[in-house]
Order: sequence, then structure tokens, then C-alpha cells
Amino acid sequence: MSPPNVLVTGGAGYIGSHTVLEMLNAGYNVICIDNLSNAYSSGSSKLPESLNRVQKLTGKTLIYYCIDITDRDQVRSVFQEHKIDMVAHFAALKAVGESCRIPLQYYHNNMTGTNVLLEAMADNNVFKFVYSSSATVYGEPKFLPVTEEHPTGNCTSPYGKTKYFTEEILKDLCKSDKRWAVMSLRYFNPVGAHPSGCIGEDPNGEPNNLMPFIAQVAVGRRDVLKIYGSDFPTKDGTGVRDYIHIVDLAEGHLRALEKLRNVAETGFFAYNLGTGVGYSVLEMVHAFEEASNRKINYEITDRRSGDVATCFANASLAEASLGWKAKRGIIEMCADTWRWQSNNPNGYASK
Amino acid sequence: MSPPNVLVTGGAGYIGSHTVLEMLNAGYNVICIDNLSNAYSSGSSKLPESLNRVQKLTGKTLIYYCIDITDRDQVRSVFQEHKIDMVAHFAALKAVGESCRIPLQYYHNNMTGTNVLLEAMADNNVFKFVYSSSATVYGEPKFLPVTEEHPTGNCTSPYGKTKYFTEEILKDLCKSDKRWAVMSLRYFNPVGAHPSGCIGEDPNGEPNNLMPFIAQVAVGRRDVLKIYGSDFPTKDGTGVRDYIHIVDLAEGHLRALEKLRNVAETGFFAYNLGTGVGYSVLEMVHAFEEASNRKINYEITDRRSGDVATCFANASLAEASLGWKAKRGIIEMCADTWRWQSNNPNGYASK
Repeated sequence: MSPPNVLVTGGAGYIGSHTVLEMLNAGYNVICIDNLSNAYSSGSSKLPESLNRVQKLTGKTLIYYCIDITDRDQVRSVFQEHKIDMVAHFAALKAVGESCRIPLQYYHNNMTGTNVLLEAMADNNVFKFVYSSSATVYGEPKFLPVTEEHPTGNCTSPYGKTKYFTEEILKDLCKSDKRWAVMSLRYFNPVGAHPSGCIGEDPNGEPNNLMPFIAQVAVGRRDVLKIYGSDFPTKDGTGVRDYIHIVDLAEGHLRALEKLRNVAETGFFAYNLGTGVGYSVLEMVHAFEEASNRKINYEITDRRSGDVATCFANASLAEASLGWKAKRGIIEMCADTWRWQSNNPNGYASK
Repeated sequence: MSPPNVLVTGGAGYIGSHTVLEMLNAGYNVICIDNLSNAYSSGSSKLPESLNRVQKLTGKTLIYYCIDITDRDQVRSVFQEHKIDMVAHFAALKAVGESCRIPLQYYHNNMTGTNVLLEAMADNNVFKFVYSSSATVYGEPKFLPVTEEHPTGNCTSPYGKTKYFTEEILKDLCKSDKRWAVMSLRYFNPVGAHPSGCIGEDPNGEPNNLMPFIAQVAVGRRDVLKIYGSDFPTKDGTGVRDYIHIVDLAEGHLRALEKLRNVAETGFFAYNLGTGVGYSVLEMVHAFEEASNRKINYEITDRRSGDVATCFANASLAEASLGWKAKRGIIEMCADTWRWQSNNPNGYASK
């Protein structure tokens, strides 16, 4: 069986680039599209810097197009140009707060964009799809740990709704046409970086997520970490989340792609990608202080609307069905983040 | 105050054309766009036949463009060409069964299309919007009559989901920008026709809804009415719905437009447009037999998946807020449908 051609949308981003790296190592042919809305390109190379480094790390090459997934003609041209076997769809806007301010852009990018992609797939007889979903589809957890059986919906932000609505569309699609095989991977809280320290998370502006914020404070790029709420009903009052190492997450995608490749089963399948363990914000801060040997200044500020107290996964379904389990713990998450951040204090722009 | 310019999408369709008629009579300037996916055009005139007749009935003219709402450039060109004050958005695919077979087209047309429209509005500083929603957003009713406070979601068909998802987008939009004033009109079951008998419902192919099916059997265009299920827990075993006369429905839109025009209040508002009275399928059949003086042959067949036993509205909020109340009863619904159908046995294609 010749290696499959996988179209990766949003391949230059944080999760995309780490997954592309694992895909190349596993022998897949990778065709990336990315509009660089949240990725850095030096301009001197056609390739975004993250993918440039992925090529160096793997010694392999990939194909890249600067394409926006909402551009119907350009997306279709990629399917004309290449015989695509499967699609891994990472491209999305992902900032919860921003989504409340500019919801139309979120619906345009995340929903219209996905629809354009799915239509192009169907028209080209490509029916294997790995979707970047999120634990946010569960809304406020009704029970813990959260299993895939937990009801979805009741999302508070437009960002969360785009993930939930898209899952519903994918379910409808699988019901309407038995050729579709869709794996919706519900990420908990991805953190960390490739152990090389060469690729990692490089958010635009003030980070929305905890770990890059901590890392930027540790490296001196920001003065003080904002902790949103210390009065949650948790062990220390700060929010508890299920952080998962980005390399574990990337490996989860590999297992999903392998299953789509080798197993004839079709339909819609959702899997939690988490560790099953929850850490509080303060626990993460202290772990990072140890890993970096730096003091993290922080201040407590108001809760953000929509933030729940505690969320962590039951990840046993992914283990049973995909043979995947997160292996990397909090020390590795912090050490790898720190290696990336200290080697690249300003992210990809620094080299 | 000069008469406002209202952009009407889907203006050539059943609900659109009846509403355009009332709008013209009330002195509005109407700019219609319609892709004619579910409307008849003779080809000899640029105008769809329904709107041609609306012009004759009112003695007024409207502006029409054959435009698909998913076509960003064409939609934007209309806003360039005309100073639009308000938008009434009817354009949508609406067949529940079809939506299960071709969900992507439904999401493309109903959601991407609406998004294109809303983005064009915002970019042109147009923030007054009347949306064609549906009682389907309530899913299976948890209590009756259904008020606007009834939870939404849990829709079973892609069609229903497009209506529910769009309402959520509109709510997010109103939260994000206080200039938006959105009225989401949740239709129960529109039936009937303009009393002139010149315009009415003219579905493509086998009707999805009861009333045009009855009318086509009465006029001899179809042999037998299919009744889906006679074992519902209702008075006679057939499904009970809240049928509303199309002219009442059109008047409801007028009230909504007037309020948007005259009242500075912004935000998202949902109103049930129904009568508050439920009739069974068999009651409608018998009423139609009386109105038409024809025998309606029918056969009982299996329930359709997703059909609920009983649904009817509490329409008091629209009365209190919009000063609107349905005035036309079942006899008028049947008599007006019959006048339209008997004058136009093959719909608009017959003349």
C-alpha cells in the first residue's frame, strides 16, 4: 500500500505543525494548506517557519499552499492537483474571547470554511476526515470525568458553537452517505512542544491559553500572568483542566489516520484526547517554575465568563478504539514548553 | 420619513411573495433577490411569475435580481446599488426529508448564505433584520402551547438545525454589537393563499407539506393524499399542528418591519407566529372537502421520523409586542387555498 496523501488544513499552526511532523515521520505524504492567519512566515521562504522547521526535523518534504479554506476555487484546485486520500482539518479561529467580539468571522471561517472543504471532498470522492474538535462541545460538564456520551451543546461562546455545530453537520453527513468516515477528536487542553525545542506554540498577541502565557512570563516577554478567578470550587480555587502534551495529541491523530486508512468502518466517531488527570492553574504555575527555574509573577483577576471550574476527560474510549493513550506528564509538558520558549523567546519571529 | 428600502431574500417564494405584496401595499420599497430554486419564471419576463402577479395585484413595482445569497460578490453588489434600510431574509431550502439526504447543500444554502448576507449588511451599516425561523427550533415540545421561552435545539433534521444554528448566530451577533436589531419569526404551519387566488404555494415535485398535497389531490393532480401516521396520541390519531394563514403570516412580518423601523430598541427578539389552535390532519382534510366540495382520497402510511404528535403556539408575545394576532380561521385557509389551486391547477406554470 503506497503512503496515503493527506491534506492537512491549518498545518502551519500549533497542533497542525506537530501533527504534520509525526505524519511525515510515519511516512505519510502531506499536503498542507494554511492562510497564515495565526502562523509566521519569514517571507524569505515560501514555507511558513513552523513547517520549514518540521522539514528540517524530519528530513522530509511536504507540499504547502497558502490558501484560505473559505476560498472554494482554491480549495478545489488542491483536490484537482493532488489525489487526496484523507483530510485532517485543523484550520480554525480558536480564541474564545475574540469569538464573542467578532462572531461572524468565526462562523465564516470555522463553519463556511469546513463546509467548503467537505463539499470539495465529496465532489472528489474523498470521505475520510479527521476533525479538530474540542472539549468545549460538552459545555459545562454535568459529570466528571467527561465521557464521549456526555451531552454536547449548551456552548457559551461562538467559538464553542462552531465546534458543536460542525460536529452536528458531520453527524448528519455520515447519516446521509455511508461512505463518510469521520473521526472527531475532542481535544482537552493541548500544551507543551516538540522535545527538540524547535517548534511550539506561538500565539499572536496576548495568549488566550495558560501555558504560553506562563512561558512568556518566564522568559521575560510579559511581566505578570493573569489568573482568571481563584474562587472556583477546586482544591486551590483556580480552574482545573486536563492538559495534554502536544506530542501525545499529535500521536492521537496518527492513530486516527491509521484507523481510517486500514479499517473499512464508516460513520461518525468522537474521541476524547486528554490524559484523564486534572491540574489547577496554580499547580501548572508551580510545575513550570520548577521546570524553568524561574519565578512566575501572577495576579488574580476576575473569572472569564463561560469558564467552568473543572473539566477533565475520560479518555478510555480512544485507548480501546484507537490504541492511543497519553504518555507524557506535567513535568514533560513544562520542560518541553520551556525549551521551546527559552530557545525562541519571540516565537518563530526570533530567528 | 421616506419609505424604507427593504431587501427581501427569497422574495419569489411562497412566504416571500405574500409578504412582498403586503409590503408594497404598505408603501415599502422592495428589492428582491431570489435564485429561483423554488420559484417559477416563464422566461418571457425577467420577473418570476409570483412577483409579476404581485406587481399586478398591487399596481406597484419592485426591483428584482436573480441572485443566490451564497454569492458574496453579487449580494454585495446589491448593497452597493441600493441604500438598504432593512432586510427580510426568507431565502432557504426547507424540505425536512431532503435535508436528511443532502445536508451539505442545506448547510451551504441556509447557513453560509445567511452568513454572507449578515456580513454584507454589517459592512454596509445595515443592522435591522427579520429572519424566517420556524417552530422546528423547539424540537419535540416539552410543553404546550409552546412559548418563546421553550428551550430550542434538539432538532432532528439538518433543516431544523440550520434554523436553530442561525438563531444562535443571530443571538451572538446581537451580543457582540449593540447596533443589531433582529426579529426571528418562528413560523408554525403556513397555509392558504392570497384571497385573489392569484398567488399561492407552488412546490416543486411532491409537496412536503399537508395543505398543498391536499389541494393537489382535490384538483386531480395527484390521486391520493398520504397521511403519515394515525397512531399519534391525538384526538383522531393524526398529527396536530398550528396552521396559520399566509396573509396573517405576511402581516406579522409587516408588524415586525414597522417595529424595527419605528422603535430604537436593539437586540435579538423571537416571536411565535401561529394561531394558538391545533388542528389534526383529518380535520384539515374534512375542512378542505367542505371548502372545495371535493372528496379527498387519502391513505394512512408510516410516520415520518422526527414528526411529533402535537405542536401549537402560544402566540401572545407577538400580540403584546408587535400588536399582531392571526385573524383568519380554518375555513378561510381552505377556501383561499382552493381558490388558488383551482384557478392554477399546475401552479404558476399553468398560465
